[in-house]
Amino acid sequence: MHYNLALIGFGNVARALARLLVRKQDILKSKHDVTFSFTGISTGRHGHAVNPNGLDIQKALELVESGKDISALSVKPLADSMEVIHHSQANFMFENSPVNTETGQPALDHIRTALNLGMHVSTANKGPVVHGYRELTALAASKGRTFRHESAVLGGAPVFSVMREAFPLAELESFKGIFNATTNVILSRMESGETYDEALKYAQKIGLAETDPTNDVDGWDAAIKVAALVTVLWDTPMTPQQVNPTGIRGITSEMIAKAKAEGKRYKLVCSAEKVNGDIKVGVAPQLVDSSSSLYGMMNSSTGITFRTDVIIDYSIVLSEKPGMTGGPVETAYGLFADFVNIVK
Amino acid sequence: MHYNLALIGFGNVARALARLLVRKQDILKSKHDVTFSFTGISTGRHGHAVNPNGLDIQKALELVESGKDISALSVKPLADSMEVIHHSQANFMFENSPVNTETGQPALDHIRTALNLGMHVSTANKGPVVHGYRELTALAASKGRTFRHESAVLGGAPVFSVMREAFPLAELESFKGIFNATTNVILSRMESGETYDEALKYAQKIGLAETDPTNDVDGWDAAIKVAALVTVLWDTPMTPQQVNPTGIRGITSEMIAKAKAEGKRYKLVCSAEKVNGDIKVGVAPQLVDSSSSLYGMMNSSTGITFRTDVIIDYSIVLSEKPGMTGGPVETAYGLFADFVNIVK
Repeated sequence: MHYNLALIGFGNVARALARLLVRKQDILKSKHDVTFSFTGISTGRHGHAVNPNGLDIQKALELVESGKDISALSVKPLADSMEVIHHSQANFMFENSPVNTETGQPALDHIRTALNLGMHVSTANKGPVVHGYRELTALAASKGRTFRHESAVLGGAPVFSVMREAFPLAELESFKGIFNATTNVILSRMESGETYDEALKYAQKIGLAETDPTNDVDGWDAAIKVAALVTVLWDTPMTPQQVNPTGIRGITSEMIAKAKAEGKRYKLVCSAEKVNGDIKVGVAPQLVDSSSSLYGMMNSSTGITFRTDVIIDYSIVLSEKPGMTGGPVETAYGLFADFVNIVK
Repeated sequence: MHYNLALIGFGNVARALARLLVRKQDILKSKHDVTFSFTGISTGRHGHAVNPNGLDIQKALELVESGKDISALSVKPLADSMEVIHHSQANFMFENSPVNTETGQPALDHIRTALNLGMHVSTANKGPVVHGYRELTALAASKGRTFRHESAVLGGAPVFSVMREAFPLAELESFKGIFNATTNVILSRMESGETYDEALKYAQKIGLAETDPTNDVDGWDAAIKVAALVTVLWDTPMTPQQVNPTGIRGITSEMIAKAKAEGKRYKLVCSAEKVNGDIKVGVAPQLVDSSSSLYGMMNSSTGITFRTDVIIDYSIVLSEKPGMTGGPVETAYGLFADFVNIVK
């Protein structure tokens, strides 16, 4: 089976995905008899391109990474991402446009359109999960297609597929975790003596925090991940606004030093619990001690602990590994895994 | 679809499984249209029973748990476990006879027989995984059946299914972990000041360590789990003898106190690494510091960290949860999950 792939969004993650697909193309062919070509690419600032016979992906990567436009690769002029979807003749779309916490757009419209055109869809974007999970899942089913989103939390490390495939008929009672790497780096470095400002600058320097760090430090990135997990795992729509996060700006060096002296740590704890059918959620800094599964998650490590009626405390941890490639490649793998699991 | 189930071995885990199946029977029916009855039970010391129309499982549980024999429930006299398999008319067998590290018997013969009779098989027994994985997997395939073993390591917490379903086309480069709860409890309590003998007595009192603790403290339980993971995840046969474990008897209170003063801990570290096609394995006490994913796994917590070419350090941790039910129920869930994943 041959797949025409559309890449909507062509940032770090989508480009890492393109390289991963190329690197794994032989094993995809030998193990699952699947081949692919890239027939549509839509970028934020470097134009759009389609070619139903396959775009030169190496050329597209080179162009974008040297700040150039890809429009010259296209067999027809295109005004926007929607035209890429319509003219790509793709049967699988990867949606990686920038996340919009409040509306889920434009990802939501991209995905609706692609599903209506008969494409499978995988996204790393939390917006459409939070704002359209039920609708998109139902739409996909009605078209005989699949909508997946493994990379929406914990940066591509398997989480949704673990709960879906490895926990059959288990009842999820609660989860808690550390979902935001930037705040965890800041809190870890403050424990080593840095001020908040120094720690934030470091997180920005290594490319983790954005110039405007609001989304991370005020807890919104964590909150949308909590909302995405609640939405999918309990099939219960929830928005980040309902999570109503408290960020880490109120945590001072003095508070951290005092906690450290008592063998404790502040963590931006994400939690959700089902109590008598109600779901209680939270994102807020909390003191944890060494008996907590979250205590050992330092720096850019993130993780989640699930409590179910059968396996009580099961944790998944994505550890920091200094000096090794992670980040975009790991997030790209979540998209790749969705692709393989759908087409195999 | 209706399944006739044979329970070969009816100890703590198998009895927890029977109760779990009964507890989940409504959701199995409503979600997957699967029903079941127990048509064969073979115990170690309380006899054997078959009834193709279904045995009274509550009665069987009561009898065995009050030390009585179940033979009176049988529609025919049975000499041994093999006769239970032959006369159960089962189409799914759960194999939970006592593990034999050196030969894998009698589990190996039980499973061969069941597969040849057209049954699916799930086992919590590490013996047949280590001594027969390739053969049993091939035999199952040739009969259009499935052989699974989720509960063979990490007490029923999803591990094999995570690697199989959630890591498609990933290359496993190495794993390391803490696989034996008894030795981890002993080392944890020695860190709190107990002697080896006191800590061992505690582990025996809570039902974790056996009267003869050799299998745990000399590293053989850990070694067979390493062998099972290598055998399955790299499809490379390996025996616990090849792992050649070093246990914890050589670790003194003085060594532990010295390590603690340096912010380190001894852990019975299980490891395996693929280097240029060769697989290097080990089970031995090692000093770890707080940068290790194993450092925080205390008491009866166990876990594993996988390094792959795509997701670098991905850990699964099954945490101790004092006062909560775990143990047999969790191991039983691994068997239940195999069942659901095969029959759904």
